Amino acid sequence: MNAISMTNSKSLMLFSGRAYPELAEAVGEYLDVTVTPQQAYEFANGEIFVRFEESVRGSDAFLIQSCTSPINTWLMETLIMIDALKRASAKRITVVLPFYPYARQDKKHRGREPISARLVADLLQTAGAHRLMTVDLHTDQIQGFFDGPVDHLWAQPLLTNYIADKYSQDDLTVVSPDSGRVRTAERWADRLGGAPIAFIHKTRDPDKPNEVVANRVVGEVAGRTCIVVDDMIDTGGTIASAVRQVLAAGAKKAVVAATHPVLSDPAAQRLSECGAVEVVLTNTLPIPPEHRFGQLTELSVAPLIGQAIREVFADGSVTSLFDA
Amino acid sequence: MNAISMTNSKSLMLFSGRAYPELAEAVGEYLDVTVTPQQAYEFANGEIFVRFEESVRGSDAFLIQSCTSPINTWLMETLIMIDALKRASAKRITVVLPFYPYARQDKKHRGREPISARLVADLLQTAGAHRLMTVDLHTDQIQGFFDGPVDHLWAQPLLTNYIADKYSQDDLTVVSPDSGRVRTAERWADRLGGAPIAFIHKTRDPDKPNEVVANRVVGEVAGRTCIVVDDMIDTGGTIASAVRQVLAAGAKKAVVAATHPVLSDPAAQRLSECGAVEVVLTNTLPIPPEHRFGQLTELSVAPLIGQAIREVFADGSVTSLFDA
Amino acid sequence: MNAISMTNSKSLMLFSGRAYPELAEAVGEYLDVTVTPQQAYEFANGEIFVRFEESVRGSDAFLIQSCTSPINTWLMETLIMIDALKRASAKRITVVLPFYPYARQDKKHRGREPISARLVADLLQTAGAHRLMTVDLHTDQIQGFFDGPVDHLWAQPLLTNYIADKYSQDDLTVVSPDSGRVRTAERWADRLGGAPIAFIHKTRDPDKPNEVVANRVVGEVAGRTCIVVDDMIDTGGTIASAVRQVLAAGAKKAVVAATHPVLSDPAAQRLSECGAVEVVLTNTLPIPPEHRFGQLTELSVAPLIGQAIREVFADGSVTSLFDA
Amino acid sequence: MNAISMTNSKSLMLFSGRAYPELAEAVGEYLDVTVTPQQAYEFANGEIFVRFEESVRGSDAFLIQSCTSPINTWLMETLIMIDALKRASAKRITVVLPFYPYARQDKKHRGREPISARLVADLLQTAGAHRLMTVDLHTDQIQGFFDGPVDHLWAQPLLTNYIADKYSQDDLTVVSPDSGRVRTAERWADRLGGAPIAFIHKTRDPDKPNEVVANRVVGEVAGRTCIVVDDMIDTGGTIASAVRQVLAAGAKKAVVAATHPVLSDPAAQRLSECGAVEVVLTNTLPIPPEHRFGQLTELSVAPLIGQAIREVFADGSVTSLFDA
Amino acid sequence: MNAISMTNSKSLMLFSGRAYPELAEAVGEYLDVTVTPQQAYEFANGEIFVRFEESVRGSDAFLIQSCTSPINTWLMETLIMIDALKRASAKRITVVLPFYPYARQDKKHRGREPISARLVADLLQTAGAHRLMTVDLHTDQIQGFFDGPVDHLWAQPLLTNYIADKYSQDDLTVVSPDSGRVRTAERWADRLGGAPIAFIHKTRDPDKPNEVVANRVVGEVAGRTCIVVDDMIDTGGTIASAVRQVLAAGAKKAVVAATHPVLSDPAAQRLSECGAVEVVLTNTLPIPPEHRFGQLTELSVAPLIGQAIREVFADGSVTSLFDA
Amino acid sequence: MNAISMTNSKSLMLFSGRAYPELAEAVGEYLDVTVTPQQAYEFANGEIFVRFEESVRGSDAFLIQSCTSPINTWLMETLIMIDALKRASAKRITVVLPFYPYARQDKKHRGREPISARLVADLLQTAGAHRLMTVDLHTDQIQGFFDGPVDHLWAQPLLTNYIADKYSQDDLTVVSPDSGRVRTAERWADRLGGAPIAFIHKTRDPDKPNEVVANRVVGEVAGRTCIVVDDMIDTGGTIASAVRQVLAAGAKKAVVAATHPVLSDPAAQRLSECGAVEVVLTNTLPIPPEHRFGQLTELSVAPLIGQAIREVFADGSVTSLFDA
Repeated sequence: MNAISMTNSKSLMLFSGRAYPELAEAVGEYLDVTVTPQQAYEFANGEIFVRFEESVRGSDAFLIQSCTSPINTWLMETLIMIDALKRASAKRITVVLPFYPYARQDKKHRGREPISARLVADLLQTAGAHRLMTVDLHTDQIQGFFDGPVDHLWAQPLLTNYIADKYSQDDLTVVSPDSGRVRTAERWADRLGGAPIAFIHKTRDPDKPNEVVANRVVGEVAGRTCIVVDDMIDTGGTIASAVRQVLAAGAKKAVVAATHPVLSDPAAQRLSECGAVEVVLTNTLPIPPEHRFGQLTELSVAPLIGQAIREVFADGSVTSLFDA
Repeated sequence: MNAISMTNSKSLMLFSGRAYPELAEAVGEYLDVTVTPQQAYEFANGEIFVRFEESVRGSDAFLIQSCTSPINTWLMETLIMIDALKRASAKRITVVLPFYPYARQDKKHRGREPISARLVADLLQTAGAHRLMTVDLHTDQIQGFFDGPVDHLWAQPLLTNYIADKYSQDDLTVVSPDSGRVRTAERWADRLGGAPIAFIHKTRDPDKPNEVVANRVVGEVAGRTCIVVDDMIDTGGTIASAVRQVLAAGAKKAVVAATHPVLSDPAAQRLSECGAVEVVLTNTLPIPPEHRFGQLTELSVAPLIGQAIREVFADGSVTSLFDA
Repeated sequence: MNAISMTNSKSLMLFSGRAYPELAEAVGEYLDVTVTPQQAYEFANGEIFVRFEESVRGSDAFLIQSCTSPINTWLMETLIMIDALKRASAKRITVVLPFYPYARQDKKHRGREPISARLVADLLQTAGAHRLMTVDLHTDQIQGFFDGPVDHLWAQPLLTNYIADKYSQDDLTVVSPDSGRVRTAERWADRLGGAPIAFIHKTRDPDKPNEVVANRVVGEVAGRTCIVVDDMIDTGGTIASAVRQVLAAGAKKAVVAATHPVLSDPAAQRLSECGAVEVVLTNTLPIPPEHRFGQLTELSVAPLIGQAIREVFADGSVTSLFDA
Repeated sequence: MNAISMTNSKSLMLFSGRAYPELAEAVGEYLDVTVTPQQAYEFANGEIFVRFEESVRGSDAFLIQSCTSPINTWLMETLIMIDALKRASAKRITVVLPFYPYARQDKKHRGREPISARLVADLLQTAGAHRLMTVDLHTDQIQGFFDGPVDHLWAQPLLTNYIADKYSQDDLTVVSPDSGRVRTAERWADRLGGAPIAFIHKTRDPDKPNEVVANRVVGEVAGRTCIVVDDMIDTGGTIASAVRQVLAAGAKKAVVAATHPVLSDPAAQRLSECGAVEVVLTNTLPIPPEHRFGQLTELSVAPLIGQAIREVFADGSVTSLFDA
Repeated sequence: MNAISMTNSKSLMLFSGRAYPELAEAVGEYLDVTVTPQQAYEFANGEIFVRFEESVRGSDAFLIQSCTSPINTWLMETLIMIDALKRASAKRITVVLPFYPYARQDKKHRGREPISARLVADLLQTAGAHRLMTVDLHTDQIQGFFDGPVDHLWAQPLLTNYIADKYSQDDLTVVSPDSGRVRTAERWADRLGGAPIAFIHKTRDPDKPNEVVANRVVGEVAGRTCIVVDDMIDTGGTIASAVRQVLAAGAKKAVVAATHPVLSDPAAQRLSECGAVEVVLTNTLPIPPEHRFGQLTELSVAPLIGQAIREVFADGSVTSLFDA
Repeated sequence: MNAISMTNSKSLMLFSGRAYPELAEAVGEYLDVTVTPQQAYEFANGEIFVRFEESVRGSDAFLIQSCTSPINTWLMETLIMIDALKRASAKRITVVLPFYPYARQDKKHRGREPISARLVADLLQTAGAHRLMTVDLHTDQIQGFFDGPVDHLWAQPLLTNYIADKYSQDDLTVVSPDSGRVRTAERWADRLGGAPIAFIHKTRDPDKPNEVVANRVVGEVAGRTCIVVDDMIDTGGTIASAVRQVLAAGAKKAVVAATHPVLSDPAAQRLSECGAVEVVLTNTLPIPPEHRFGQLTELSVAPLIGQAIREVFADGSVTSLFDA
C-alpha cells in the first residue's frame, strides 16, 4: 500500500488559565465540553509550570484566560500554555482573551513610549497562537495588531438591551465620559433608538501634559436619565466624575454601563458613592466579593463566547454575533 | 595585516517617487541636498521600472512619496523603489509618506473586510523599509501597525498657529464633523487656549448600516466662529455638510482646517460653495490647479519633514517636533 | 465530555478580482461553482475596498485575478482580497494569476534595479497567500521566487495542438523573435514533431545599452511556414519585426503564437499589419474589443485552470496537466 | 452552488533518504505501507537530485533519514527532499532523524564557535519541515532548538529491558564514562531497580583545554557487573577506556550499552578489544558488515518509530512511548 | 550636493529595569556612565508603563534587568522596555539578564510541557532584542535558544577563586547535589587543582515520577571539606539536604557555593540551619535583608558585567572573560 | 555622563572555507589582508567543526568558499562558519561563492522536484548571511532567490578580452552548445564586435523526457573559428559534442570558453580529445593537477573578487565591475 488513508475529524478542546476558571467553566457548560485537566502551579520563585493531563495532539484548541490582576502573571501563563499546546501538536490554537491586556497602550502618546498592545499581539503569535478571540476592544484598531484572524465579539448589545429594557420609560441621553469615546456613545444612541448624546470636554494646558484644568458637559443632559458609557472601568475616576458632572448639570438620574470590570481600587468605592443608580458591567474579568457593591449588575458573556467558539469550530459565521 | 580598518561615515541620500516631486525637492532644498537622479517610467502595460543613476551603497536613504491618485500606482512604485534600494545595499531605508495610504481601513468595520492599513505597513517592511515617517495619521494606532520605528510628525500645530494668528479676535468654537474626531477637536481647543468644542451627532438606523437618518449639532456654536477640523478631506461631503449645519445653527463664520488635501471630486466645488470663509490645508498631497479655489490656503510641510529627516539622520530627537 | 469531535470537511470557494470577471466565471462554470459574491469598489481617492458577502471561514479559497491594465490597481486589489480572506479565517488561500505581473523584471539587468517579480511573490505571501497558480511564466525560475507550492500550468500545448492541426500540411519552422527564447522555440519544435528552428540575432553596441544596431535571421526560413512564438505580446514591436524579417528572408507564411495577450497600444495595429496570416493567443488576460483584429484567434484557458483547481482541491496530481 | 464540499481525508506517506533505506523499509513493514518510490541520484559534481514518482499532494509525509557518513550529504539530501515535498503540496512534513546530526555541537564550548545543533534545526524548518521526530537526543535541550513539535522517542527502555533480562542474576552497577552523563546513568539505575552508579572522573589542566591528566573511577564497581552506558559511540575511545578502568578497578564483568552506533574507525576494533563481554546498540544508524564484531548485539528501533508515526498520524498520544 | 556625509559615532547608553536598580548602578559606576533616566510605573491594574526621558536614537543600548520575584512582572517590563527602545530607534539592543528566567524549563521532562526557556528567548527577540548577555546559564544549551549573539559570562571563577583562597589549607572535595551537575563539579575540581568529586545519587521509583526513594553519597567525602556547588539556589532543599548527607557521611566541613541567589522561602532558614560553615553567592539577583543570614558571603558580578559591556561596545573580545 | 561616545570604525576581515584556500589567499594578497586563522576539522563521523582564532566582533566579514567536490560538505561548512560568525557578533556577513552551488536546479523541470538553488539561498540567510557575492550565475534569476543584496560579478569580460586578443585575426562565430544559452552567445558576440552566432538544435521525443534524437547546427560555422561558450563545464559532454559538431559542419577551428571549471570526470579527457585548440576557463573552482590537460588556459578571478570586496567594504560602486 502506498499510503494509509483515513477520514479526518476535528476535535474541539477547551483550556483555561488560572485567572478566572469560572468563566471557562461556564463557557464549557454552554458548549457541553469540560475544560481539559492540567497541572499548573508556580515554582517558589514565581516561574509558572503548566502540563496538560490529556493528549491534545491534533486538537482545535481554545484557551480562555482573563487578564485580571496580577496581569503580567496571567499573560505569561497564557504564553506558556500556548507554547505547550504548540509543542504538543495542537492543530490550531485560538486564544480567547475576553479583556485584551495593555489595550490602553495602543499608540505612542509621546516619543520613547512602547506600543504594548502591539507587543502583546506579537508575543501571542511568537508563542504559537494562530487566532485571537476577544471582546469589546478598547480601540478597534487593535484587531490590526494581530497578523491573523481576530474574532472581535461585541458585548455592547448585551448592555444596550439590558438598559433599553430596564429604562424604557426614561428620556435617555448617552454620555461619553471624555472626548475620545463619543463615537461609542453614538453607537449606543443608535441602539437606544436615537437618543441624544453628550460628553465631558476636558480642557488641558498644552504645556503641561495630562493636566486637566476644566471640565464642561457638552450636550443636553438636564432632566434626563444619563447612561454614562465606557469600554472599561479601571479605578473609576473618570466615570465617577462624569456621573457627578451630569448630575450637577441637572440630570435626573445617572446609570453607568461598561464592558470590562477592571475595578482596581478604589473603583468600587467611587462607583458606589458617585450617585449612579446602577452600574452595569459584564464578567469578562472576575469581580471579587470585596469589589462588589449595591448598585452593581453583572451580565455574563459566557454564552456569547460559547456561541462564538462553536461557530469558529464549525466554520460558521461569527459576524452575526456582532449584530445580536 | 589581519583586518583593514577605516572610519565609518554615514551619508544621507534623498529619493523621490514620481507622484509629487515638488515636495521632495522642497525638502531637499531645506536640507541642501539634491534628490538622487533616477530613471522611472512605466512599461506599456503599466509595470513600473525604476533605476537609480548613482551608487546608493551604504547610504542612509530617505524615500519621499505622496500617495495621491492613482494611489495604487504610487504605492507600488514605493515598494519597487524600496526593493531596488535594498538590493543596491542602502544601509537604512526610511520611507516618508506624508499621507499614509489606506489609513481609513484601519479596522474591520464588519466581518470579512481587510485591514488595509496594516497590510500597507507589512508590504513596506516586506519590500525592505526599516523605518517610516508620516504626518498626522488618521488614527494614532496605525503607528503600531509598523514593526519598527515610526516618526509620526504633527502638522496640526502648523494649522493651529495659523488659525490662532488670523482669527485671534474671534470667539472660536472647534467643531468635529462627526463623533469620531471629537478628541482631535479637543486637542485643537487646548492649543487655541481653551475654546469650546462641538460636533455633529449623526443618528443611524442600526438595521441599515451607514445610513444616516438625522444630524444634530451638539455644543455651542451660535454667534461664534467655528473652526471645523479634520485630518483629511476626501470628497468634502462630511465637512461641507458640517459647515452648513453650524451656519444653520447660527454660527457667525466657519473656517475649515485639515492636514491632508485628498480633494477628490467634487471636493473643490463642495468646499468653495459650502459657506466656509477659508479652507486651510497643508501640502502633504499635491493640489492640482483644477482643484484649487478661492478660499483655499495652503501651508507647506516641507520644513517639518526636512527638519525631521535631519534629526533622524543625526540621531537627534524628533519628539520635539511634536510639540513645535 | 472532554472534546467535541466532528468529521472534517473541506469546501472549495471561488473568488474573483474585478479585472476580468468573465474568466473566473468561465472557470466557475467548468467547476460548477459560483463565484462568491462580494462588494468591491474604490473610494474617491482610488483606495480599494472589498468585502465578501458570505462566510469564507474554513474555506479552501481560490482567488482568480487577471493582471491587466491598470496593473498596479489589480495587483493591490489582489493583496487586499488575500488580507480579507486571511482575516476572515479562510483555511487555505491559492492565488490564481494566469498572467504573472512584473515577470519581465525577474533579475537585475544592471546595478540598482529592483527584482520586481520576486517582490510580487513576497507581497503575495505577506498578505497571506499560501499557494500560487499561474500559467506559462516568462521564465521558469519565477517559481522559485515563491516560498511554497506553485502550480505552473502550461498553456503551450493548447497553442501547439491548434497550430499542429491547422497547419498540418505546411513545412513549419519555429522562430524565436530573439536569442532569449530559443529554448522555448525548441520545445515547440519538439511538440510539432521535430520542426527546424530559427531566431533573430540582434547585434548591440556594448557601449550603448539596449541599442540594437542590426538584426539577422539565423536558421532556415526560406519557403517555409514560420511559427513565430513568444510567451507574451506587449506592444508587439519585437514580434511584428520578427514576422517582417522572416518574410523578408523568404518565408512563405508567418503565424504568430503566444500565451499572454498583454496587447498594449499599438500591438493590435502592429500585429494586424505585420504580415502574419494568423495570430493565436489565449485569454489569460482580457482582450477588449478595440484591441481585436481580423487575424486574431483566441483560445480559452478556463478549462485548464478549472481542471487544475479541481485537482488541487481534491489532492490530485496537477503534474499531468503539464503534459496534456 | 456557492461552494463544493467534500469530506476531508488524510493520507500517511512514507519517504526515505538514501542513507539507510533498510530502516525506512522496516518501519514501512511495521506500518504496512510502502516507501514512496523516487528518483534520487547525484550529478557528476555531487549535487543531489530527488524527484518523487507519485503525487504527494495533501499527504501527511514522514521522511526518514539516518545521518550516517557522509553525514553532510545525507543532511543536504534531507533538506532537498523537504523542499520537494513542500513545493509538491505535502500537507504536513515530519522529518524522522533517528540520530540527530551535530548533536554534540549543542553549545559554544568556547567563544567563536557555532551552535550547529541549533543551525540544523533552523535549516530543517527553513526547508519546510513542520515537525521533528528523533530518538535519544544527546541532550534533551535540543528539543528546544526546533520551533515546533518534537517527538522525542526514547530507545533507552529497549536497551534497559534487554540488559535487565539477560543480566538479571548479576550485581549491576551503572557506569557513566564521564561526568556529563551521570544523570543518564541514574535513569538507567532506576530502571534496573535501583542499581548503584559510578562514573569516571577526568582531571583536566584548566590551562590546557581538553587535556585530561588523570582518570579515577568514582563509585562502587569492584566485584560487580558494570553496565557502561552512553547515548552514542563514535570512535569508542571514551567508552573503551571506561571499560578498561572499571575492569582495572576490580569489576567482574563489563557490558557496554548505547543507542547510536556511529562507530567511526577505530570503534569496532576498540570495542571488540576493550574487554567488554557484550556491546548492545540499536540500529538508529546502519552498522556496515566491516564494523560488526563478535560482542555486538543490535536491537531494532523500527517498531518504536513505526508506532510513533502511527500515533502522530492518528493524533494519538506519543507520550506513552516514553514510558514503554 | 547629492548626499550629506558625516562621521559615524556610536554611543553606549545604559538602561535598568526596576527589579534591582542597584546592580545597574554599580555597573554604571564601573563604566562611568549613568543609567538613563526613565518614568516607569504600573497602572492600577498592574499594566506597566515605561518612557525614557532622554533621546535614545541611534544608541548602543544595554538594558539590565534582574529577574527576581515577581518574575513575570520583571520579564514583561523587560519586553516593554525593549519595545520602547526599538520604536525609539535605538541602533542595537543588548539585554543583560544576569539570571536567565525559566532556565530550568529548558526541555520537556514529559509530554505536553512547554519549553519556557526557549519561549523567553523568542519573546526577547520578538520585542526587538538583538543580543543577549547573561551569567552562568543553568544549562549551556540555552545559548542556542537565542538566534543571535549571546555573551555568556562566567561567574564561577569568582566563586572558585574565593574558595581557593579561603580554604587553601583544607582537603577539598567538590560535591554535586545531584547527578545532573557532576560535570559542573568536575570543572570546579579542575579549577581547585584536581580535587576529588562526589555526588548524591537519588534513587527514584520509575513508576512514580519525581518520587525519590533513597539518596546515597557516591565518592570520597569522609574527613574532608566538602564544597557543595550548584548554579542557583531556589528554596535550598536539594543543597541543604546534600550538605546534611555529606556531613552524615563523615565530612569535616561543608561550604556551599552557587551563582544565583534565588533564595525563595524557606531557603534562608534551610541554608542557615543545614550545617554549612559558609554559603557563598553572587549578586546576580538582589538578596533582600530578610533573606540574609550569618553564613552568607556575597560577591559582586558588577565588574564582570561592566567589563563585558565595555568590550561589546568597543568590539573587543569577551571570550577572555570566560577564562578570567 | 549619560552616554559614552566613540567614533565608529569598520574593519574588513577575510575568512576562507577549506575547499580552495588558495583562491582566498590570492584575494587576500590583492587586498593586502591575511585570511583570519581558524581551526577547522571533521569529527570522525564527518561532522564539521570550525572556530576562529581571533575576535571577529563588529567585523565586516567576507567569507570565501568554492563549492567544489565534495560539494555538500563545503556547503555545510559555509553554513556552519556563517553561524559561528553570527554568534560571535560579526556586524555584516558577506558570503562569497564564486560558483553558486545547485544553480542548475533553479526551477522545477517537472512536478515534485525541489528548487535547490532557492533552497541554498534560504539556507545561507537562515544561517545568518546578509549579503551574497557570486560570479557568472547559471541564470540571472538566481539573484532574486536571495532576499538581500547580491553582488553578481561578471567574469565573462575576462574571457572575452582574452579571446578577442588572441584570436583577433580570425573570423569568429560564437556558438551556444544548446538552445538555452543563445542569449549568452549573443552577449559574447556583441563584445567580440558583432560576430555571428550559431547554436546546436537538439530534437527530443516529447514522450521520452531528456532523450535527444538528433542534433543540428543552426547558424553559419563553415570556415570560421568557433568560440563555443558556456557558463560551466561539468562532465563536458555537451560542450565536447558541440565542438565535434561545428568541426563536422566545416568549422576551421574550435575554442571552448567557460567560467566555471567543475570538470567532473571524464571532462578533462573529453575536452582534451574533442578537437578544440584551446579551452579557456577561470579559477572560480580549483582545477586539480589530474584534471589539467594540454589545451587548458586558466584565468584568475582573484583580482575581480578582491576589487569587488574592496568596493563593498568602502561603499563604492560594484556596478562598474560588470562592465570592466
